[in-house]
Amino acid sequence: MRAVDVIMKKRGGAELSREEIAFVVKGYVDGTIPEYQVSAWLMAVFFKGMTPRETADLTELMLRSGKTMDLSGIQGPFVDKHSTGGVGDKVSLVLAPLVAACGVKVPMMSGRALGHTGGTLDKLESIPGYRTGLTEADFRAFIQAEGFAMTGQTAEIVPADKKLYALRDVTGTVESIPLITASILSKKVAEGSEALVFDVKSGPGAFMKTVEDAEALARSLVNTGTAMGKRIVGVITDMTEPLGRMVGNFFEIEETIDCLEGKGPADLMEVTMRLSAWMLVAGGKAKSVEEGLAACEKALASGKPLELFMANVKRQGGDAEKMLALRGTYRSAHSFELKAPAEGFVSSIDAYKIGLAGVYLGVGRDTAADPVYPDVGFIFDKKAGDAVRKGERIATVHGKDAASLEAARPMIEAALRIGAARPAAPKLIVKEISAL
Amino acid sequence: MRAVDVIMKKRGGAELSREEIAFVVKGYVDGTIPEYQVSAWLMAVFFKGMTPRETADLTELMLRSGKTMDLSGIQGPFVDKHSTGGVGDKVSLVLAPLVAACGVKVPMMSGRALGHTGGTLDKLESIPGYRTGLTEADFRAFIQAEGFAMTGQTAEIVPADKKLYALRDVTGTVESIPLITASILSKKVAEGSEALVFDVKSGPGAFMKTVEDAEALARSLVNTGTAMGKRIVGVITDMTEPLGRMVGNFFEIEETIDCLEGKGPADLMEVTMRLSAWMLVAGGKAKSVEEGLAACEKALASGKPLELFMANVKRQGGDAEKMLALRGTYRSAHSFELKAPAEGFVSSIDAYKIGLAGVYLGVGRDTAADPVYPDVGFIFDKKAGDAVRKGERIATVHGKDAASLEAARPMIEAALRIGAARPAAPKLIVKEISAL
Repeated sequence: MRAVDVIMKKRGGAELSREEIAFVVKGYVDGTIPEYQVSAWLMAVFFKGMTPRETADLTELMLRSGKTMDLSGIQGPFVDKHSTGGVGDKVSLVLAPLVAACGVKVPMMSGRALGHTGGTLDKLESIPGYRTGLTEADFRAFIQAEGFAMTGQTAEIVPADKKLYALRDVTGTVESIPLITASILSKKVAEGSEALVFDVKSGPGAFMKTVEDAEALARSLVNTGTAMGKRIVGVITDMTEPLGRMVGNFFEIEETIDCLEGKGPADLMEVTMRLSAWMLVAGGKAKSVEEGLAACEKALASGKPLELFMANVKRQGGDAEKMLALRGTYRSAHSFELKAPAEGFVSSIDAYKIGLAGVYLGVGRDTAADPVYPDVGFIFDKKAGDAVRKGERIATVHGKDAASLEAARPMIEAALRIGAARPAAPKLIVKEISAL
Repeated sequence: MRAVDVIMKKRGGAELSREEIAFVVKGYVDGTIPEYQVSAWLMAVFFKGMTPRETADLTELMLRSGKTMDLSGIQGPFVDKHSTGGVGDKVSLVLAPLVAACGVKVPMMSGRALGHTGGTLDKLESIPGYRTGLTEADFRAFIQAEGFAMTGQTAEIVPADKKLYALRDVTGTVESIPLITASILSKKVAEGSEALVFDVKSGPGAFMKTVEDAEALARSLVNTGTAMGKRIVGVITDMTEPLGRMVGNFFEIEETIDCLEGKGPADLMEVTMRLSAWMLVAGGKAKSVEEGLAACEKALASGKPLELFMANVKRQGGDAEKMLALRGTYRSAHSFELKAPAEGFVSSIDAYKIGLAGVYLGVGRDTAADPVYPDVGFIFDKKAGDAVRKGERIATVHGKDAASLEAARPMIEAALRIGAARPAAPKLIVKEISAL
């Protein structure tokens, strides 16, 4: 077999055999096929797509490039949630202890902030002492103790994806539904979950800007995951505005605790409860999403999820006392207040611009090597639909230094739209695709 | 500027600016843009194409990556012909002295055999002593003396094409009209010609299998070359059967001399005369192709083209006496006769299969490093349209050794089709596209 022939076959739109896909994936991982052939193949896949069978083969072959998490000996069910990335998206932090409190185990492997989107690991590490690089033994033990644990992906999990993603990133081949599907799904399946709930975000602040694109990805994830024998749900949620009232690393830990105390903002809670309910359905702990919602409401009211969260913080090395003491005070001294330039209603706060401004502030990062900061970000007093007087505070913005604030300010001001009329309330749960 | 942004812009189908194309071409040549980004860009170009303006910019930027031939001080006009490659295509060898005899200078830079197509340089080098690696000074001097000279492309001519072509070859991005156009045209313009006639072959033995594809390339060459200020003609000719009755390196030198002596086969002479006539028109030495044809007929009858050919052979180090002495005898001892398996008419002799079989025999080569042989190839007694008795000889085949003959035999037998009815005569000059 020659790589150029596989490239040309895909270029012509034909379906590749499992052997041909394996030839490319294995050849790339072991270095026998050079990057310039893999990138040409990726671009051909971008234009010609993959059939569900090809996508499932690619996912499985990527999965097999590394090791998979062994959760045997622990009582399941194991269900994880994956978000395609948003701004202010701290759903995982609330959902994991909430779902665990309902009897579903959550072996959660998360990522870091990149570009305009935040990262769960960066948020957790803003808790003094919190460790996210768990050994497999610790990960297993912590799941047994609290029903969930939070870690990063080790280098042994799907090494093919690490190489392929790095290449896609610099060759304009990221935005391909089958390639995204295989990248996400191979890693999630490697974690050991039997069921997965995907939060596919759509809108200006999401990777998928339109509902159509988000639905295409959600369907691909559901179909491919189902073909691989997993129980899969895809939920398309809106990412026009940042989720919740806080954007920032420690800021979002604070809002997580608010949620677990029953004081979470409505938009964030709606998305969190819905995804949690689907996890209970996927894990067999609820017969319907309505039953799942009721169970989640009950669990939240019991205080158990907050207890589990606090226990996990301590378990993973975090200083829970210090975390609580820092609530409301862990704020960079470099700040300004974003004020309403006119009277009216907040029409929208553009999540994408807020996410990009967050990179300047120190919330996120441009490249994987950049540092992030715990005490920077946004605290919104107003969001879309709220009435404002001229000069009234919309948000307080904290940056790592004065220069970062100045750099971010024009983007933040551009993110805010004030209108004369109250805008229609956004529909947060856009569409649900279940293969259960 | 970032390479990934240029890739994504082309991926989306947008027209690239000259600066963006220059960024990729220069970055690739100087090594600042890695191959994996260039190959992804090439694949995006394959799918999204280029506008005439982009193609002209790419051609000119490739041209400028190296040096161009300086023909100043020599009396023009300078016109060259380029063929996209065929089997038995020795047109250049007859056409150059013929056109030179009519007062048009031909600074001819040719290539070598690769895959199923033959190479003018390999044919010339089958003449004992003949040198094709001329210095610029010799090339100029020889053009002044005989009106034409034959050389290979030096490493300094369009180095960008050498790098790009090598990458396209292994990444499935060869078959792109704008990339082919820029590759051909940049090299031809670098030679210093003011006018160019392109012989775009179409059919099974050609690079472009269909007339539609050949026409698309011909139009792209004419439009792009015209945009660069050159006088351009594109002639689409048929490459279903090998051209002429001889295929092989020295074999084709023999047939060249036959042609120059006025004894050339009809198909080969038709194509040669038509292309030569267009060169006279392009060079301003004839007002119409009909006038050009008449001038070529007259020149051929005068014996001047044969004299110029013999003079060029001596000028470029060839042993003309020995060449003439070898006529009809320079044949490998390893041979067989291809015989008609049935009575009827020769329906077709597949040029592509003959070309591929020629690689086994030692006429052509698989990779640039393979040797070729002078005394091997095909001598056809019959071609399409000829009546044959069962067992009658169709061709004599010479190979470099017995094993090569055995390896080539099934392909050669498969190339021959015998039918009950006489096939329609092929139309050799399929279409002419002139921007004069």
